[in-house]
Amino acid sequence: MKVSERLKKDAQDIWDDIINHPFILELYRGTLPEEKFRNYILQDYNYLIGSIRNFSILASKAEKVETMREILKIAWLEATGEFEGYIDFINQMGISPKKAKQTQLSMEGISYVNFLLSTSSLKSIQEGITAVLPCYWTYYEIANFHRDKIDVNENKFYRQWASYYLHNDYKEVVQKLRDLTDNICKGFPYERLKEIFITSSRYELMFWESVY
Amino acid sequence: MKVSERLKKDAQDIWDDIINHPFILELYRGTLPEEKFRNYILQDYNYLIGSIRNFSILASKAEKVETMREILKIAWLEATGEFEGYIDFINQMGISPKKAKQTQLSMEGISYVNFLLSTSSLKSIQEGITAVLPCYWTYYEIANFHRDKIDVNENKFYRQWASYYLHNDYKEVVQKLRDLTDNICKGFPYERLKEIFITSSRYELMFWESVY
Amino acid sequence: MKVSERLKKDAQDIWDDIINHPFILELYRGTLPEEKFRNYILQDYNYLIGSIRNFSILASKAEKVETMREILKIAWLEATGEFEGYIDFINQMGISPKKAKQTQLSMEGISYVNFLLSTSSLKSIQEGITAVLPCYWTYYEIANFHRDKIDVNENKFYRQWASYYLHNDYKEVVQKLRDLTDNICKGFPYERLKEIFITSSRYELMFWESVY
Amino acid sequence: MKVSERLKKDAQDIWDDIINHPFILELYRGTLPEEKFRNYILQDYNYLIGSIRNFSILASKAEKVETMREILKIAWLEATGEFEGYIDFINQMGISPKKAKQTQLSMEGISYVNFLLSTSSLKSIQEGITAVLPCYWTYYEIANFHRDKIDVNENKFYRQWASYYLHNDYKEVVQKLRDLTDNICKGFPYERLKEIFITSSRYELMFWESVY
Repeated sequence: MKVSERLKKDAQDIWDDIINHPFILELYRGTLPEEKFRNYILQDYNYLIGSIRNFSILASKAEKVETMREILKIAWLEATGEFEGYIDFINQMGISPKKAKQTQLSMEGISYVNFLLSTSSLKSIQEGITAVLPCYWTYYEIANFHRDKIDVNENKFYRQWASYYLHNDYKEVVQKLRDLTDNICKGFPYERLKEIFITSSRYELMFWESVY
Repeated sequence: MKVSERLKKDAQDIWDDIINHPFILELYRGTLPEEKFRNYILQDYNYLIGSIRNFSILASKAEKVETMREILKIAWLEATGEFEGYIDFINQMGISPKKAKQTQLSMEGISYVNFLLSTSSLKSIQEGITAVLPCYWTYYEIANFHRDKIDVNENKFYRQWASYYLHNDYKEVVQKLRDLTDNICKGFPYERLKEIFITSSRYELMFWESVY
Repeated sequence: MKVSERLKKDAQDIWDDIINHPFILELYRGTLPEEKFRNYILQDYNYLIGSIRNFSILASKAEKVETMREILKIAWLEATGEFEGYIDFINQMGISPKKAKQTQLSMEGISYVNFLLSTSSLKSIQEGITAVLPCYWTYYEIANFHRDKIDVNENKFYRQWASYYLHNDYKEVVQKLRDLTDNICKGFPYERLKEIFITSSRYELMFWESVY
Repeated sequence: MKVSERLKKDAQDIWDDIINHPFILELYRGTLPEEKFRNYILQDYNYLIGSIRNFSILASKAEKVETMREILKIAWLEATGEFEGYIDFINQMGISPKKAKQTQLSMEGISYVNFLLSTSSLKSIQEGITAVLPCYWTYYEIANFHRDKIDVNENKFYRQWASYYLHNDYKEVVQKLRDLTDNICKGFPYERLKEIFITSSRYELMFWESVY
């Protein structure tokens, strides 16, 4: 079994709780109060900024130039397409850019981002990449699991948001991250990766909990 | 007003909640179930390891050699006296060193430690020192506020634990950290320090909450 | 006077030595033995890899998201256009990609790159940006000073190489780096920036010396 | 063969050049002009400051708490005994502390220190420890190889300096660093360690060359 598959299997309980979290269920059913969604979007926008910062550190830790360029590409995609897409989406929802900027991360968000940043800064690149995997991957799993509900969702913002994570572009990034993990983590002590992966998965769950 | 005093004043609400936290009150009254105390000690022991790591990073970020040596001294005191004191204390309580080592930090503990580590790694030394101040300082404030209760506390472990934070040695480390903050933070944008100090204070409160 | 101008003025002696270095003079006159140029190209290709790594670290240290995105853009341009342009150029010169990859940096190259990396990792972003400025900026100054010699240069590789640093794209990156320096270094202790800028300028000179 | 022995063997040529460097030979014979020695001492004093900083980073990168404490001990010994010994020695030689402080590292010294700092910051702890080994170890080898010349050396400062590296305390630190390397580098790709070890050994040689 590939490292990434084994990690997912070991975190399956937490991932099930994420995929079936009431915030997710209500969002996909279209019954989530929009106020909660707005708060989530503002939190996630600020998380994204931390994530770009984190991929920059990860790029600098790559041993091979090819790996460095691959990770830098993800950082760059986040800093352009994803970041600007977020700004657009926030605009469409009628939230001012100023408000988005002034929003502070919740303690859960701060905790998650700083876990990523310190793992990337102080530990190996194998552990750093493993830490970012649950975020990207669970979003794809969520979107895929609930895909039938998207078209019948009456809230256009929810439809738009949910569609993003089914695009081929997004799927490719997730696959690239998995491949990267599988490539560079071969032979790396599995228990250390597992601890990181479980912790990140818990932060994902905590993040959903915090915006509900 | 000195920077450290201003920071304390701005976090006073959170500090009041810490000083009067039920865990603290029951501990000083001697009514805290010992099981909770044991759990706290094991968590705090693992937090200490993260804190030594953090002071090592901070030492490396000091601009002046005098500051580097001062911070390294704190790291060294933590890694020897405080660390070995903890091992002794854990032994006296009948907890095996193996159990202490195998204990994993709670999500709250992980979050707090990684906030310290990433602040020290990625931000300025001014912000890094500000982040560690609430931990040391609130312990002194707690001990000082509840000092009358120590002698009448019927639990000898609680008496021993509480006395530690009233020793002159401990008081001096707190004073040294405050002086260091006041010296190096002169002229540094206050709002950035305040955000860090408030966040660390919140983590202190969360930590007490998590062991209660 | 802007910070960047003041820095350049304080390093003018070293910059004059760079602009009039025999390697540069012979290259622009077309009299440089091609063997020396090939060695330079292989060294510079490996320096570039270190530089991409360095900009990744710098991006992660930016306080504001706008600054982070600007620096990431430079890292990304280096990792794509500049890097691939180098691979092409090396191919055209008949050097195999394998050879380029196996080339090790000289002690001067290692020293320069590690000075950049440790400045970015351990010091402020102001000092980190100041450290990369001489490399970009002197290349523009060299190209501009010797521009008349390019068209009459009989070596097509030398013409191609020299033209690169006169493109508007290149000029814009230099200007962006200068603007960035001027913006974020306002109010930062000048002497610390000067020391970094002089050291980097000396490394530039040493680098030319090492390939001559 | 232990990793440390294999590394030493692979760098033997460079180490021979260090042990027989004219600066060393003249110093042990007592014929080195004192002016050169003074310059060396001031350079080495500033190198020491960089080395303390480097051991602080290394401590923070240790996976196990025992390793962290061992490395922190070396940092602390350098920051107290060795540092204060240097201040004393400089005083005895009639150099003012102010002059010592104002002395700037040569480009060779800057290069060496920044190689250590960036290796510790960005690479693995195995590579970081390997990078510091040649400095400590060659000083012991030099002292041991030339030990017969110490008693007959007519310059008391040279006698005092040379004796330091024959003390049991010093020998123990060297042994501890070797043991640490042998312990944590087991199974680590040898070629990466070798490259680091050779580079550090070259810096040692360059450092002696720069003060001669």
